[in-house]
Amino acid sequence: MNETMISITGNVATDLRFVRSERGTPLASFRLASTERRYDRGRGEWTDGRTTFVTVVCWRSLAENAAASLRKGDPVVVLGRLRVEPWEREDGRTGTSVEVVAHAIGHDLSRGTSAFRRTRREPG
Amino acid sequence: MNETMISITGNVATDLRFVRSERGTPLASFRLASTERRYDRGRGEWTDGRTTFVTVVCWRSLAENAAASLRKGDPVVVLGRLRVEPWEREDGRTGTSVEVVAHAIGHDLSRGTSAFRRTRREPG
Amino acid sequence: MNETMISITGNVATDLRFVRSERGTPLASFRLASTERRYDRGRGEWTDGRTTFVTVVCWRSLAENAAASLRKGDPVVVLGRLRVEPWEREDGRTGTSVEVVAHAIGHDLSRGTSAFRRTRREPG
Amino acid sequence: MNETMISITGNVATDLRFVRSERGTPLASFRLASTERRYDRGRGEWTDGRTTFVTVVCWRSLAENAAASLRKGDPVVVLGRLRVEPWEREDGRTGTSVEVVAHAIGHDLSRGTSAFRRTRREPG
Repeated sequence: MNETMISITGNVATDLRFVRSERGTPLASFRLASTERRYDRGRGEWTDGRTTFVTVVCWRSLAENAAASLRKGDPVVVLGRLRVEPWEREDGRTGTSVEVVAHAIGHDLSRGTSAFRRTRREPG
Repeated sequence: MNETMISITGNVATDLRFVRSERGTPLASFRLASTERRYDRGRGEWTDGRTTFVTVVCWRSLAENAAASLRKGDPVVVLGRLRVEPWEREDGRTGTSVEVVAHAIGHDLSRGTSAFRRTRREPG
Repeated sequence: MNETMISITGNVATDLRFVRSERGTPLASFRLASTERRYDRGRGEWTDGRTTFVTVVCWRSLAENAAASLRKGDPVVVLGRLRVEPWEREDGRTGTSVEVVAHAIGHDLSRGTSAFRRTRREPG
Repeated sequence: MNETMISITGNVATDLRFVRSERGTPLASFRLASTERRYDRGRGEWTDGRTTFVTVVCWRSLAENAAASLRKGDPVVVLGRLRVEPWEREDGRTGTSVEVVAHAIGHDLSRGTSAFRRTRREPG
């Protein structure tokens, strides 16, 4: 069974988009920016490296709670599967979609505190 | 370079222990219980499987914010390195310590909502 | 410290490209195809899902050994960091590069056997 | 759904144990030693840190191919789920079992080369 498991920390880079699928299933998405931190041996200090952007997608209770909790700029930790897909629009433009289909998201407690309120017992 | 990267979701199973090292560095720890969910093909439903317990350890700003945010029973997502070490006490008893040295912890938004407050810009 | 750790299994989809940087450092790269396997509850069997393609990049001894070991079609397991970067060519075309900078690669033993020969003790 | 995904690199520390379950399913296991490498800023070099031992367990075609391929001392990369379980023997001794239930294992190409031979198309 092939796997593309990813764990990623970074900052929410856009407002959250929240919709319902045709069947009524909640779906949320946002852009996540993850900037590398590298130890520069020459200078003896940590510096910023490159920034990677991905689109985080989530469903159901995770989508509802993410939409109620996450704001642009928030630091988060995300677990999920990576999906890379080419796309082509009607006008002929093409591109690549880089998505993390998340099964867990949380505010990153290395950057601040969070007050939690449970919404339901067991999402499956 | 050897790696033992782990990502784990589960529930905080104990009160948090918060101390300062001799040098004054904040250190927090708690037990985490992670219960497997398995799809039972015969019954056509998800059921609970075995529960794994580990000790989550964290340092500095992550320790301070975890101590201020996490309560027994909270669902969390944790990223870190696994460390397994044998121990022996003066009375001759022996055992095995299973630790996750965390670099990120967050409340799991698949189980509820969280209100975040940033404490500082950049923990390194 | 932000992280984008990824573990991925799939098949080598191209011949390996092997070069040396200006400083003489070995660098290898190849395309990796990872096809999802999903359990279809309705049909009671596993089926193929979408295929994700990434470019795997590696350096130094890992690059040399990968170039000597991996062939198009081989099943592999890869650990590394994800890097997503936009690019633009002189002719104005743009795109997105999705790279896994690998720190470990191996033939996937769930698909076959491998005969190993150690090349050096410790790559750092 | 709770997860305890782990990716680990290290060396095979024991001979492989290979058995068949009562139903005839192949099962292989071995001890894996993973020694941390740390950058010592004071000395400006990499040094060995602590060693973590886990038991790697695998089933079916992965068990058969691992038994045919892995030797004590081989460097490997392993993906799987972590399971920690207390045990008690009839004589009253107790302990903790730390297992990685592997879904992929490969020889680590940062340490040497491997010659691969596919055994079957698709293990599920």
